[in-house]
Amino acid sequence: MSGLRVAVAGATGAVGAELLRLLAERKFPLASLRLLASARSAGRVLPFDGEELPVEELTDASLEGCDLAFFSCGGDRSRRFAPRARARGTVIVDNSSAFRLDEDVPLVIPEVNAAALDGHQGLLAVPNCTTIVFLMAVAPLHREAGLSRAVVSSYQAASGAGQAALDEYDAQTRAAAEGRPLEASVLPRVLHGNVIPFVGDLREDGATTEEQKFPDETRRILDDTDVEVAATCVRVPVARAHAVSAALEFRRPLEPARAKEILRVAPGVVVVDDADPPDYPTPLDASGRCDVFVGRIRRDASRPGGLLLWSVGDQLLKGAAWNAVQIAEHLVRRGGV
Amino acid sequence: MSGLRVAVAGATGAVGAELLRLLAERKFPLASLRLLASARSAGRVLPFDGEELPVEELTDASLEGCDLAFFSCGGDRSRRFAPRARARGTVIVDNSSAFRLDEDVPLVIPEVNAAALDGHQGLLAVPNCTTIVFLMAVAPLHREAGLSRAVVSSYQAASGAGQAALDEYDAQTRAAAEGRPLEASVLPRVLHGNVIPFVGDLREDGATTEEQKFPDETRRILDDTDVEVAATCVRVPVARAHAVSAALEFRRPLEPARAKEILRVAPGVVVVDDADPPDYPTPLDASGRCDVFVGRIRRDASRPGGLLLWSVGDQLLKGAAWNAVQIAEHLVRRGGV
Repeated sequence: MSGLRVAVAGATGAVGAELLRLLAERKFPLASLRLLASARSAGRVLPFDGEELPVEELTDASLEGCDLAFFSCGGDRSRRFAPRARARGTVIVDNSSAFRLDEDVPLVIPEVNAAALDGHQGLLAVPNCTTIVFLMAVAPLHREAGLSRAVVSSYQAASGAGQAALDEYDAQTRAAAEGRPLEASVLPRVLHGNVIPFVGDLREDGATTEEQKFPDETRRILDDTDVEVAATCVRVPVARAHAVSAALEFRRPLEPARAKEILRVAPGVVVVDDADPPDYPTPLDASGRCDVFVGRIRRDASRPGGLLLWSVGDQLLKGAAWNAVQIAEHLVRRGGV
Repeated sequence: MSGLRVAVAGATGAVGAELLRLLAERKFPLASLRLLASARSAGRVLPFDGEELPVEELTDASLEGCDLAFFSCGGDRSRRFAPRARARGTVIVDNSSAFRLDEDVPLVIPEVNAAALDGHQGLLAVPNCTTIVFLMAVAPLHREAGLSRAVVSSYQAASGAGQAALDEYDAQTRAAAEGRPLEASVLPRVLHGNVIPFVGDLREDGATTEEQKFPDETRRILDDTDVEVAATCVRVPVARAHAVSAALEFRRPLEPARAKEILRVAPGVVVVDDADPPDYPTPLDASGRCDVFVGRIRRDASRPGGLLLWSVGDQLLKGAAWNAVQIAEHLVRRGGV
């Protein structure tokens, strides 16, 4: 197979590092690989598959001639550079929230709605990381019983707010261990020894932008405008891997035993749910893993036919880099790039 | 006022320490104060109001002649010692879960159901700490609109599992800062840099004992057997102060603005809920405070008339010691002890 000319925009970030690792590990068919980042990072060198590659500044020119570009450098840069590159024929896989609700942009979790990639128009969006962790567990159950409503509370890792937030959390841990005062400037509050019930920006209706992504993206990915999702998003002192606690209501009753059967054979899902001794997945278990881990699957006694469950996934991997690489591999297999 | 002969069983624990501090600070009417603990701690000396008091072993004999005893040393010791002391005329305020569902034992949050103390039979129970943090926010709204169902996910502090769990978490923080491996033996998993979706013991139906306390105790405290509560209880790397994310459904619609009005005048509740700049309560804000802090009050777009909110309280104080002292003060005022 002849390779593709690929660019990674945001190569120096936390998701960028995972993208590079996965492209090498998966032996993604590369004719060339261009690492792009902000002017500040240009001139750095990053390891890739035993070599060292230079980082160039992300510009219209540096994207020219690429067949495929991964974008992981925030919504503003995606909005600025992706449409022009796409117009010049580069297929874009975008990790930002910039285009996720655009009608002509497929919003795809390959295990859930790969068919949405067919006939794409050069721009594909990776869903919000927490929504991916939620839907990997919920979409297979939706197919069986028809999800009508979900109430979700999240437990989101520091690295979901970027490398600087993770560094700040690590610095706070060291300060706590040494009895020094804890300082916060990247995240809105101290994270070590705390949880922060506020992720994203505040909307007029009192929800945060992060919380609104749950209903918006769930409806698009499940292709069902009647699904309701109420979300509360909370940052917790965890390095990587987001978790969600979910209460699910279905159009048709779903027994916990049947839900476990379905999830045990769902691609990309690992059920960790044992009684003796009790076993369940935690963020530390999921860190560095591409699968999403589901446990605490049980009847919701407060709602006939309802279910409660707990889902955990590494948001840098399945929540971002791995989902993006899966989309790209799918396109390569189908000749869509 | 002539004072009471008081005992604190579990004086050397995390809740015991707060009880002693509060009894001194509140100038609780004491004729004598006896500090009781396990045989292992007998002979130690604890500070109380500028003095030093000896710790005696908790036995039937050491409780003799007491007018009032606070129990904070686990369900087993409460079950073993409280009934006999009560039979000999000692009024018991019990922080354990041993008697919370007994018909003749009032289960009381004074701001919510103080009337249940009238005509007590010598044994009073303090509710589960997380349920208190939940109900301090929810009971005033229930009185207005009639709670029908709540979906709750908790964010519970290490000290809720006792001083040993808190010490283990602190040791893990130091190990993490120094790059040493993290070890867990008190809690079922490593807590630093992690969250543990499992608090208490597993029940036959897949819920944990901690999760089942929510519906059981909520129904007793609100005196409403029709209220449904689904809970998922999660331990988080926080030293003290539990938080809950709650989705509330009511029999009559309740607007967020009206809910805020109600909570702003609710005793023992502080509303922290601002838009510009965004403000909301975190566990660090609530630590060391007797009030319960409520924020993120907003419409639940997934359920007509429903509300979402976030509630935080120091579980050693309002979740345990302070609620117990409030009960005792109430009894003293009413001549009930």
